[in-house]
Amino acid sequence: MSQADDLKRFIEDVPGFPQPGIVFRDLTPLLRDPGAMRRAIEALGNWAAGLDPTVVVGIESRGFLFGVPIAQRLGVGMVPVRKPGKLPRSTLREEYTLEYGSNALEMHVDGIAPGDRALIVDDLLATGGTAAATRRLIERAGGTVAGFAFVIELRDLDGRSQLGDAPVLSLVQY
Amino acid sequence: MSQADDLKRFIEDVPGFPQPGIVFRDLTPLLRDPGAMRRAIEALGNWAAGLDPTVVVGIESRGFLFGVPIAQRLGVGMVPVRKPGKLPRSTLREEYTLEYGSNALEMHVDGIAPGDRALIVDDLLATGGTAAATRRLIERAGGTVAGFAFVIELRDLDGRSQLGDAPVLSLVQY
Repeated sequence: MSQADDLKRFIEDVPGFPQPGIVFRDLTPLLRDPGAMRRAIEALGNWAAGLDPTVVVGIESRGFLFGVPIAQRLGVGMVPVRKPGKLPRSTLREEYTLEYGSNALEMHVDGIAPGDRALIVDDLLATGGTAAATRRLIERAGGTVAGFAFVIELRDLDGRSQLGDAPVLSLVQY
Repeated sequence: MSQADDLKRFIEDVPGFPQPGIVFRDLTPLLRDPGAMRRAIEALGNWAAGLDPTVVVGIESRGFLFGVPIAQRLGVGMVPVRKPGKLPRSTLREEYTLEYGSNALEMHVDGIAPGDRALIVDDLLATGGTAAATRRLIERAGGTVAGFAFVIELRDLDGRSQLGDAPVLSLVQY
């Protein structure tokens, strides 16, 4: 069985969530299975190791679930990118539009230092709006994006077109 | 240097956040340091191993940062407890009051099976409202609470009094 087929068994389709016409890809069965989680973390981490990142940037909140274990595997730190008003110190802010509306993301100004090479981690690549906003946050702080790592990619939404020329890996595609 | 003193160097005090009179304990420097994170994950995970949990329950969203790596260390799965409306399938719901208002938490009904012994993980023990609501969710699903693991405990708020008789560990106290 391919790696994608293996992991797909742990992703449950939920039609009509969060609104009619959308099929939500629910990762909670993957989280619930320690072996499948280990395989997902290893696959993303091993690929990312070749990009030589100095830091992982995880996007709130499902990106947090994968960001820390991948960062630990790579031996680097993790910087959270959060919804507005959650980070307590001085932040950078970027607006984005996403599949179901619009919003903004914030990152501490000292999260990324000039010269940092960031691996951006999230559970899902959809339109690419949040990942692209995260890239802008990293670049405004003086860093560069080493790559993007996702568990799931929704190919019809063509999020890759928003991500610039850094390498992108997704483990499971729909 | 004690473990608490070691980790405290990576927690930054932010006075006046999220409101005047509150000192926010900011964990982002801890996340940014891979060695300090490893030590925190190991300390909580090693303690929890003695409780023989069958699953980790992590509370959105900073509990996600510690829940997955601790679960991986223990070789068990992780179940997310989330703010209302985020989980796509059938959920249980519990209301709680917290330091700055009131809210509710939800867990998938199939997240915990009868007989599961859950380790509840969050970044911070304050009033204990969210941790106690999470305990109620687990018990309604037929599980029991093996223990509670926090990075930080705010002792003045006496959150432990809300947690019943399961063992509690915090790594850093204020």
